[in-house]
Amino acid sequence: MPITANNPDRTSWLHVDKNSDFPIQNIPFGVFLTRDDIITIGTRIGDTAIDLGALHQLGYFEGIPLTDDIFLQDTLNDFIADGRKTWRLVRNRIGEIFDAENDTLKSNKQHKEVVLFRLDEIEMQLPVQIGDYTDFYSSKEHATNVGTLFRDPENALLPNWLHIPVGYHGRSSSIIPSGIPVHRPQGQTLPNGATEPVFGPSKLIDFELEMAFITTDANDLGEPIPVNEAEEYIFGLVLLNDWSARDIQKWEYVPLGPFLAKSFATSISPWIVTLDALEPYRVEGPKPIKKQLDYLKFKGKKSYDINLEVSIQPKGAKETTVSNSNFKYMYWNMSQQLAHHTVNGCPVNSGDMMGSGTLSGPTPDSYGSMLELSWRGENPVKLKDGSERKFINDHDTVIMRGYCEKDGTRIGFGEVSTQLLPVFESKKK
Amino acid sequence: MPITANNPDRTSWLHVDKNSDFPIQNIPFGVFLTRDDIITIGTRIGDTAIDLGALHQLGYFEGIPLTDDIFLQDTLNDFIADGRKTWRLVRNRIGEIFDAENDTLKSNKQHKEVVLFRLDEIEMQLPVQIGDYTDFYSSKEHATNVGTLFRDPENALLPNWLHIPVGYHGRSSSIIPSGIPVHRPQGQTLPNGATEPVFGPSKLIDFELEMAFITTDANDLGEPIPVNEAEEYIFGLVLLNDWSARDIQKWEYVPLGPFLAKSFATSISPWIVTLDALEPYRVEGPKPIKKQLDYLKFKGKKSYDINLEVSIQPKGAKETTVSNSNFKYMYWNMSQQLAHHTVNGCPVNSGDMMGSGTLSGPTPDSYGSMLELSWRGENPVKLKDGSERKFINDHDTVIMRGYCEKDGTRIGFGEVSTQLLPVFESKKK
Repeated sequence: MPITANNPDRTSWLHVDKNSDFPIQNIPFGVFLTRDDIITIGTRIGDTAIDLGALHQLGYFEGIPLTDDIFLQDTLNDFIADGRKTWRLVRNRIGEIFDAENDTLKSNKQHKEVVLFRLDEIEMQLPVQIGDYTDFYSSKEHATNVGTLFRDPENALLPNWLHIPVGYHGRSSSIIPSGIPVHRPQGQTLPNGATEPVFGPSKLIDFELEMAFITTDANDLGEPIPVNEAEEYIFGLVLLNDWSARDIQKWEYVPLGPFLAKSFATSISPWIVTLDALEPYRVEGPKPIKKQLDYLKFKGKKSYDINLEVSIQPKGAKETTVSNSNFKYMYWNMSQQLAHHTVNGCPVNSGDMMGSGTLSGPTPDSYGSMLELSWRGENPVKLKDGSERKFINDHDTVIMRGYCEKDGTRIGFGEVSTQLLPVFESKKK
Repeated sequence: MPITANNPDRTSWLHVDKNSDFPIQNIPFGVFLTRDDIITIGTRIGDTAIDLGALHQLGYFEGIPLTDDIFLQDTLNDFIADGRKTWRLVRNRIGEIFDAENDTLKSNKQHKEVVLFRLDEIEMQLPVQIGDYTDFYSSKEHATNVGTLFRDPENALLPNWLHIPVGYHGRSSSIIPSGIPVHRPQGQTLPNGATEPVFGPSKLIDFELEMAFITTDANDLGEPIPVNEAEEYIFGLVLLNDWSARDIQKWEYVPLGPFLAKSFATSISPWIVTLDALEPYRVEGPKPIKKQLDYLKFKGKKSYDINLEVSIQPKGAKETTVSNSNFKYMYWNMSQQLAHHTVNGCPVNSGDMMGSGTLSGPTPDSYGSMLELSWRGENPVKLKDGSERKFINDHDTVIMRGYCEKDGTRIGFGEVSTQLLPVFESKKK
């Protein structure tokens, strides 16, 4: 089925700024609270949010096999479970409804009143209930930098890294949408030179620039997903900030991996941009350095050219861009990650989320964490307001953005923006 | 509120075998499919399953604040979210209804027909939808054995182990109830002496004898749970078999921890035995070897005396008990685990599950995995049919059981029984 929603020549009767992340070719999916405090599934064109529940009730999706309440839900899980064919039909139809040439909804004031919202009238929610969250570690530059800083510069990349898309399970319950602030966590750390740990606020709070993909129901227990079928089960992508407490991480992570250093919060952008919308931005990824096992060998272009940037905004000051990277730097692509994840028969369900790992590029200005950007504090990062950062300060806001651009069409993700607050003070005292 | 359901002098008008795990003092909670293919929440006395949805509809829970459909659900999550006071009221009432002195239901043939089921008429399901699954590593004996076998006998216990209840995130989607078979997983392994990995079926499939606790909604993002309040948020426990592929684990686990070596399957017993039912079996745990940080210091007895055993049953042969252990050997107790897990503000929700880690005891016949029992294959374990095992063979069934016993009352968990099948063969060819 052709993805007519991607037609680059189409314009919308809704206003779209020239540099908007959300032209009519994007049509992402999200969940929001409306001005009437109703929760609904929606999409966005320019700065207009569109209530898909209302559109469906008014008959605009006639002919597409959808249950009556598919968009009147708290999460996208059921819609995603309907599968790729349904996603395409719905995106294609939305493209038609908002096409500049189509007068049907445009000329119906009553319908527009219940379907369209200004962004300041809605509140974005988590788009899916995330059953399982996996975080990969698929940027060679990041793995090399971390290996150099935490372990041994001579053997920075561990022996398994070029063979395995290394990953681990993350915590689902602390995943939050853009806009929700995060408290600086407390925990155990081992001060330099000490033999006994101390308890207190983490002193080394960091971001990690990542993207994550959301899956649909993919396989039963025991059944692997072949690498060349993997994209069939990927609904779309979001930006992800994998908040990290480096001092807690260093003391706790051997031998079972990071735990409390990560599980205090993970922030994501609220609009899921579909893999279909990213189709024009496919590129080849890095060439394999070592021979890869058959179950990881794929055909065609499985990487995507997505520009990424990170800014830090101190309270009351302007933001400073501290990193420019790209999703295409990822050594192991999403198809390889999903094939690896399921090669042992592990089931993947609708609404599962898989993070890329920190997306560091080849140059120091493209590193995806403060640990790397400041080189563990040796080279503090200068901000526009004259201050410096080794890590993130209380009241700083970290903002990540991402977009694709080609032949005059830009498809973006909006942003994931999160303020770091001081340590939580209990109300229970 | 007193836990009258635990009254040791009470007998039931339902038949209960002398050695049953499920006397009227147990009253566990589970989810099952009935003979009419209806899914319901239930409990069990002796070998009789009791449909709580039907009991509720017939008015037997009058006076207890419960929504009409609380037991007519696929999972216990909503009931658990109602909190400890409600669990106690319901357990106490069930004790009264089935008390030998109470004739109300006993004499109502019509009611009994819709409420009571023989075990062969029902099919047990997963009792909760597990949002997040955490696995701890809290047996000192197990951590010492694994450290000796995988790393360095001189420094078997890592420096953080006596300070941190070490844990990591597990995979929720592959958690299955007792009775569902598991396929031998395939994956990458590094043969001894090789420098390049190979792909194929795991050759070292192991069980891990664990218990796990199920939580209720406990805290908001940012808010820690104090160690002495932690038990308020624990609904109950199950037996857990943390299936492990040792060869996959060895090659993949540095630096982010075990991943595919564990995520192919985790089996649990289907009846959740409440913490209330275990109240008479509280004991003191192991004395701390090193000073523990304040947030881990607890008052009172927080360990439980639960006898555990593991059997292996080859296809068509009798089972052989290969291990006898106890939950009380666990160095870090559940209250410490939950306080540690949330000290960084990580939210814990109704239906989350936290595994103990392998429960090895101090003597070789109490080790909780084949890795330890056979000492990495050096001392094969002899079975009754004359065969030997270093690890688990295809078609073997692994059975774990657990029970408390004191003053003539026995409260048990039933069993988690799982057959290992050969590698999955795709139907897609």
